[in-house]
Amino acid sequence: MTATQRLAELDLPLPPPPQPAGAYTRAARTGDLVFVAGQLPMADGKITCSGRVGAEVSLEEAQSAARLCALNTLSILDAEVGIDQVTQIVRLTGFVCCTADFTDQPKVVNGASDLMAEVFGPLGVHARLAVGSIALPLGAAVELEVIAQVQ
Amino acid sequence: MTATQRLAELDLPLPPPPQPAGAYTRAARTGDLVFVAGQLPMADGKITCSGRVGAEVSLEEAQSAARLCALNTLSILDAEVGIDQVTQIVRLTGFVCCTADFTDQPKVVNGASDLMAEVFGPLGVHARLAVGSIALPLGAAVELEVIAQVQ
Amino acid sequence: MTATQRLAELDLPLPPPPQPAGAYTRAARTGDLVFVAGQLPMADGKITCSGRVGAEVSLEEAQSAARLCALNTLSILDAEVGIDQVTQIVRLTGFVCCTADFTDQPKVVNGASDLMAEVFGPLGVHARLAVGSIALPLGAAVELEVIAQVQ
Repeated sequence: MTATQRLAELDLPLPPPPQPAGAYTRAARTGDLVFVAGQLPMADGKITCSGRVGAEVSLEEAQSAARLCALNTLSILDAEVGIDQVTQIVRLTGFVCCTADFTDQPKVVNGASDLMAEVFGPLGVHARLAVGSIALPLGAAVELEVIAQVQ
Repeated sequence: MTATQRLAELDLPLPPPPQPAGAYTRAARTGDLVFVAGQLPMADGKITCSGRVGAEVSLEEAQSAARLCALNTLSILDAEVGIDQVTQIVRLTGFVCCTADFTDQPKVVNGASDLMAEVFGPLGVHARLAVGSIALPLGAAVELEVIAQVQ
Repeated sequence: MTATQRLAELDLPLPPPPQPAGAYTRAARTGDLVFVAGQLPMADGKITCSGRVGAEVSLEEAQSAARLCALNTLSILDAEVGIDQVTQIVRLTGFVCCTADFTDQPKVVNGASDLMAEVFGPLGVHARLAVGSIALPLGAAVELEVIAQVQ
């Protein structure tokens, strides 16, 4: 089953690719790698989840935010190369805006990793980094960066 | 116009490449990718901009610091492979030392992205990540990492 | 001398590769690059060094933690491709959980860089990034990410 078919089965339409928040582009390709720019939990041009996990933001809200970051990443991959050209999600980095005593960054970033597994199956299994951050762009609770291998 | 010609036109002489702050090297090449080590706003061996954006450091000062990080990155690329061998700035990551309520990391990192566009034109357009940090090496307000594609 | 021989000479047996802390895999290969997942100072399934450098954690403890992260990275590289297949440690990123006034992240991450130099000699020299973080997974004081080039 292709990624496009899986997205349809999951009833997950891809949103329009978000615009970059600064003087850069949404994705850069080098050889068969695509570096997707950092994605925020943004829908219709607005941040849907802002604040610190461990304070204003719950674990569940942050997981949903991570999933939305991943969905935005997929929309960019689809617009740039076509989602079905992805042969592997290589590396995923999740930054989590949090309090100093929050230690469940991996559970937050699972929201993004799980979506990759749902959509790509074994091709979605990736190396990962989950890191806490004192503050993220536009007040977002999560920021996600993906490197994908494409045909 | 080459990057060397653009730097001359912009009256931007490249500084001497900064020395690594630890047990590593300033850049590593693999295939046609060069990973440049994290660069700080350093001139003549000293940090020119330290502290937190949102408190001691203004947005404008941080943007200048990001530009200086980018200039140091270019000096390393020039020393390693020759600046005119760069065929694309692939990915740029900017870490911004900031307060918990600062959310304009993208505007800070634009200081680096804009320099890449000025020097490389369309080859300087990159994917990007901007992240807040509680503290950076040597007290720097900004740290920049660049991955470049070279001939 | 091979990396295996150096590890024996240093009397550094590789620990069993740690399990991922979330929905991802320990390493992903693309072409001749291996992206190793973020490693924590973990031994026998437990974090050995938690808290903030500059407060509960000393510089020396954090350096040892960084060295342990690097050793865990090597155990993964060995399990995935064989440690003697590594032709270069390309890039190393160290996140250091710290207080806002701590600025010696590079000295902490040297604990990891030094191990790479000891084990791989000139092949272990890498580009590097050292960054402060407000909080890391499972309360770890250090998190390490490595990209290696392999045969």
